[in-house]
Amino acid sequence: MTSLRVAVLGATGYTGGEALRLLAGHPAAEVTVVGAGRTAGGRVGDTHPHLVPFADRRFESLPVEAVAERAEAALLALPHEESAGTAPALVEAGVRVVDLSGAFRLEASAYPPWYGFEHPDPTWLGKAVYGLPEVMGEQIAGADLVANPGCYPTAVLLALGPLLSAGLLEPEGMVVDAKSGISGAGRVPAETTQYAASEGSIRPYQAGVHRHTPEIEAGLSAAAGAPVTVTFVPHVVPTTRGILATCYARTRAAADTLAAALAEAHDPHPFVRALPAGELPDPKRVAGSNLAEVGVAVDGHSGTAVVAGAVDNLVKGAAGQAIQNLNLMFGLPETAGLDHPPVYP
Amino acid sequence: MTSLRVAVLGATGYTGGEALRLLAGHPAAEVTVVGAGRTAGGRVGDTHPHLVPFADRRFESLPVEAVAERAEAALLALPHEESAGTAPALVEAGVRVVDLSGAFRLEASAYPPWYGFEHPDPTWLGKAVYGLPEVMGEQIAGADLVANPGCYPTAVLLALGPLLSAGLLEPEGMVVDAKSGISGAGRVPAETTQYAASEGSIRPYQAGVHRHTPEIEAGLSAAAGAPVTVTFVPHVVPTTRGILATCYARTRAAADTLAAALAEAHDPHPFVRALPAGELPDPKRVAGSNLAEVGVAVDGHSGTAVVAGAVDNLVKGAAGQAIQNLNLMFGLPETAGLDHPPVYP
Amino acid sequence: MTSLRVAVLGATGYTGGEALRLLAGHPAAEVTVVGAGRTAGGRVGDTHPHLVPFADRRFESLPVEAVAERAEAALLALPHEESAGTAPALVEAGVRVVDLSGAFRLEASAYPPWYGFEHPDPTWLGKAVYGLPEVMGEQIAGADLVANPGCYPTAVLLALGPLLSAGLLEPEGMVVDAKSGISGAGRVPAETTQYAASEGSIRPYQAGVHRHTPEIEAGLSAAAGAPVTVTFVPHVVPTTRGILATCYARTRAAADTLAAALAEAHDPHPFVRALPAGELPDPKRVAGSNLAEVGVAVDGHSGTAVVAGAVDNLVKGAAGQAIQNLNLMFGLPETAGLDHPPVYP
Amino acid sequence: MTSLRVAVLGATGYTGGEALRLLAGHPAAEVTVVGAGRTAGGRVGDTHPHLVPFADRRFESLPVEAVAERAEAALLALPHEESAGTAPALVEAGVRVVDLSGAFRLEASAYPPWYGFEHPDPTWLGKAVYGLPEVMGEQIAGADLVANPGCYPTAVLLALGPLLSAGLLEPEGMVVDAKSGISGAGRVPAETTQYAASEGSIRPYQAGVHRHTPEIEAGLSAAAGAPVTVTFVPHVVPTTRGILATCYARTRAAADTLAAALAEAHDPHPFVRALPAGELPDPKRVAGSNLAEVGVAVDGHSGTAVVAGAVDNLVKGAAGQAIQNLNLMFGLPETAGLDHPPVYP
Repeated sequence: MTSLRVAVLGATGYTGGEALRLLAGHPAAEVTVVGAGRTAGGRVGDTHPHLVPFADRRFESLPVEAVAERAEAALLALPHEESAGTAPALVEAGVRVVDLSGAFRLEASAYPPWYGFEHPDPTWLGKAVYGLPEVMGEQIAGADLVANPGCYPTAVLLALGPLLSAGLLEPEGMVVDAKSGISGAGRVPAETTQYAASEGSIRPYQAGVHRHTPEIEAGLSAAAGAPVTVTFVPHVVPTTRGILATCYARTRAAADTLAAALAEAHDPHPFVRALPAGELPDPKRVAGSNLAEVGVAVDGHSGTAVVAGAVDNLVKGAAGQAIQNLNLMFGLPETAGLDHPPVYP
Repeated sequence: MTSLRVAVLGATGYTGGEALRLLAGHPAAEVTVVGAGRTAGGRVGDTHPHLVPFADRRFESLPVEAVAERAEAALLALPHEESAGTAPALVEAGVRVVDLSGAFRLEASAYPPWYGFEHPDPTWLGKAVYGLPEVMGEQIAGADLVANPGCYPTAVLLALGPLLSAGLLEPEGMVVDAKSGISGAGRVPAETTQYAASEGSIRPYQAGVHRHTPEIEAGLSAAAGAPVTVTFVPHVVPTTRGILATCYARTRAAADTLAAALAEAHDPHPFVRALPAGELPDPKRVAGSNLAEVGVAVDGHSGTAVVAGAVDNLVKGAAGQAIQNLNLMFGLPETAGLDHPPVYP
Repeated sequence: MTSLRVAVLGATGYTGGEALRLLAGHPAAEVTVVGAGRTAGGRVGDTHPHLVPFADRRFESLPVEAVAERAEAALLALPHEESAGTAPALVEAGVRVVDLSGAFRLEASAYPPWYGFEHPDPTWLGKAVYGLPEVMGEQIAGADLVANPGCYPTAVLLALGPLLSAGLLEPEGMVVDAKSGISGAGRVPAETTQYAASEGSIRPYQAGVHRHTPEIEAGLSAAAGAPVTVTFVPHVVPTTRGILATCYARTRAAADTLAAALAEAHDPHPFVRALPAGELPDPKRVAGSNLAEVGVAVDGHSGTAVVAGAVDNLVKGAAGQAIQNLNLMFGLPETAGLDHPPVYP
Repeated sequence: MTSLRVAVLGATGYTGGEALRLLAGHPAAEVTVVGAGRTAGGRVGDTHPHLVPFADRRFESLPVEAVAERAEAALLALPHEESAGTAPALVEAGVRVVDLSGAFRLEASAYPPWYGFEHPDPTWLGKAVYGLPEVMGEQIAGADLVANPGCYPTAVLLALGPLLSAGLLEPEGMVVDAKSGISGAGRVPAETTQYAASEGSIRPYQAGVHRHTPEIEAGLSAAAGAPVTVTFVPHVVPTTRGILATCYARTRAAADTLAAALAEAHDPHPFVRALPAGELPDPKRVAGSNLAEVGVAVDGHSGTAVVAGAVDNLVKGAAGQAIQNLNLMFGLPETAGLDHPPVYP
């Protein structure tokens, strides 16, 4: 069997490095381009010392045509606005793309307010498939451009989506309180992500104005079959990896009913573990893996369901999900390269 | 001036140790009894190596009368059910008490369901004053028995209370998502509080059934002037100290209005820092101190106020607040022994 | 190809769990017994929630004969004294054993002073092969009983061994200052391994009297061809995984010479990465993997070589090395099941 | 009593902030200048949100004369080369200075190789007193310019100094393996000090070439009465505060003898806690305070003393020691403003 030839563009950051890590163990894919901009020419091992299999490879900055000669598929871990231009160019050159930025996840009108730029070619927004395999599985298989979901939306949609679809939650007035590890802020140094500033800190940020809000609302609206508005507040907590999204919604259903609905919906999904009623997830139990945990408890005295989802933000929340999408696009087993258990403790 | 003679009973745990730490620097109080049960006879320095001023003191297990001979005041960091009996006995012996357990915070009917025991003498529940100085200041001055609030309720009530009192939040359907450092679980070893099990973990627990729920609801109901029900979900995150309570309530008010109400309500309170509109607190900025931060943002598109409170769970959430109560009870300056800034970073 | 059938005995702890994690992804081995004592009968998923492939398996407490019926090989993660009896019994029943305890690493006379028990059958000490593959590779292939090295000795011997063998260090007066993550203390709760007690702590322990001392000295003596005495002081630092052993020895050689010797010695070893002269290792770069890093700098003004080794204490320092030994014993590729890169960050 | 008027110059970093924190609680000193360069004009509360007492003060960039009008004393937390010029100018203007940089700690010839600049006025090196109060106490009282020791030298000299002075250690071949928290790297963001890069990392750096080496050697040589050479290797471990220096030296003395010598030497020193023989220090037990712990064990089989010192790098290792020096210079009680216990856990 010939390997699928994959280009990873924007490979210097944490997400790009994670894609390389996972592809290093992929049985049916090989990395043919390790792309970077400013770091082009540098040794991969200098940037990612843990990636021994790639240590002596070089970052390259290639034109689209050169990528197309070397790869059937590309994972893009580029800035949003750069992706908006690069992804269509690659597709037109014959490369099927999983884009990890936010550039193809929303409607055109959402880009100016939430991302601060006018989308350069909105027709591509219609062609791109939203790459949450547990929801969009079949459409991903045929896609040339997959918009890999954001880390927070992945955790939220896997947890709330099935319950909204089943009509078990009131879609009004939902709250999503999310907690993320610090690697979600990326690799570029900043004062707030310094160790000394982060240890001991529990820091809410962009309350109500985080750009994952419209993505969450679009996914939940699709699940509910009606427009859904949520209050979304992310927090940074002192850990490297992991997201926990704790979601609150009014319900008349019992925890057993809700847990059964989660279990049934996710039964076919190899990467989602639905917990028994009353048990809530912990991202520590999925660290380093493409697994997600979802669970639900009900606060009977307030009539509120507490529905939570946990992922490793760099794997199921980013690079792992991208490879899962790649597998689906190219007819490979969905779990290829992603079937190792989490690392614990 | 003669010093106030204070007994600290239950002094082996983190809260008791914190009380000793703060009293070591108190200008008008001295610790005359360092009480413990099983550890009685042991050197304080063996249990609390950081408490150099107490290193060669011994833990004592004394009858109530002996405590009364040596102390005008007692801080009780005892198990709930033990406190329920000991606190009244001390008061009857002439010792004024700040009780850090939950034994005097609720109505009698709440003890069996939330604390698992029948209250031994509910008449004392009526005599005890709930020791949140920012709300109950004057009543604390005259009290013989003060029920020191729980760590979570302190953070929540300082944040939400003034806004409910001002009628600026809808009291229906509020959500409190709290995050706590691990010292809140106490000093007794357990598998879940091991370092290796805690690092990387973001763990919700007792969703909707935590025993601070009725305490929060009682405080919020008093503030709102009507019964309030909340959904309260605490989480443990990987840090030693600190609580952040992120609270969600529907509002028609703007963030400026809410922030102004918080600022006005807390203006007289030396330990509460109300942040400008749109800024939310971080417990790292109050670590080691008796300060609390409160702040509010509004998610306009969902009509939800995000109101948050941050405290050091061992100081303003426990031992520091107890000393603040002690100061008020004995006519000392409210900030005596508590006026050092937080330790940062 | 039929899979090698492996029993993991003592599978409830961190090391046993790590063996299961790695064997889950082993292409030529399958776990046929998940052994435990007190936990026998329990679901593996309740103890190791991350081990989804084993979630519904049960811990079993089996007699030796029953293990022998179901397995050709056994990994023993048992208490030292229990292993001393169980390992020979298994070998006699036809099961080839990798023992992760200290029960077969030393000479008979070392057990009373260092491990506190008289070895029950010292003849087995002569039959056991010390399982450091980079040193003992060929002998491991023929062994029925392999004594898997301790975590600290692994880091030290990979770093210092080749340099002593080459005569490049003075064997007199060497110092080994080691730093370990907290998972090395195991899973049983203790006050010193609580999160709140560990965060912020840098704690030397058992200075000069740690039981890995004779194991380190035996390995270094073999390398040097003469008796070597070291001063060994381990420390616990606030991280979950990882060991760094910083070793100090007098030298007349330049860093380049020393680095070249390390590189040459480890060139054939798939799991050891020798760093360029002047660069020292960091266990973060090998976390979750069976890799080791070794490096050397020279302090010219004092004539001292600083030689350091880094491993993940649960992988190359325990379960990963055990599987590496298993591979060698059964003629499997040395890297089978162990070829995934580290997880970073 | 009128307060001592103190200027803190270079007040935006962690050390400067720590000086402000401690001075906020000083009974006989007040901060009259909060100095900064680029941040001049900004609110102190924006840079140091925990420093509530200074929140609305402004950073100022003042000429020397203006500082001299407002302050009798200055703490300088400036870059080394800037301090080399500013400190003498202040002294000449009548301001007595504690300089926290390295600019006055060494002999003139040491500056080019270790600090990369030619000292602008070496005559001041002779006038400056090295501010380790436990060694230089009386000379500090009369000094106009005190060179506050480095964080590592403080921990090392308090531990090794008395034993070398007493002739109990062989001065040849000593090794100092130090471990520091990350705040020691300062506040300016860098990739290596990011949380995600630091968590899980145990990182040796500048092995044998750290600029605290000549400072350590000078102090040890003075103690020994003969030239001493050490091998000094610092490491960064994942904690915010704290230094542990583990020192190795050959000895013929027993641990009891060594511990007794430490205890005797430090008996008059209010901030140094000498541990019983065989016990080694932990910086967690001194966090947030000006305390140091020192202790010694002996590895009898190798004839090596393990002598360790622990400090909070920002307090006894920097700002706290500076205030201790200030107290001595101005005839205030040595512990003024520094007598609060550590914060634990």
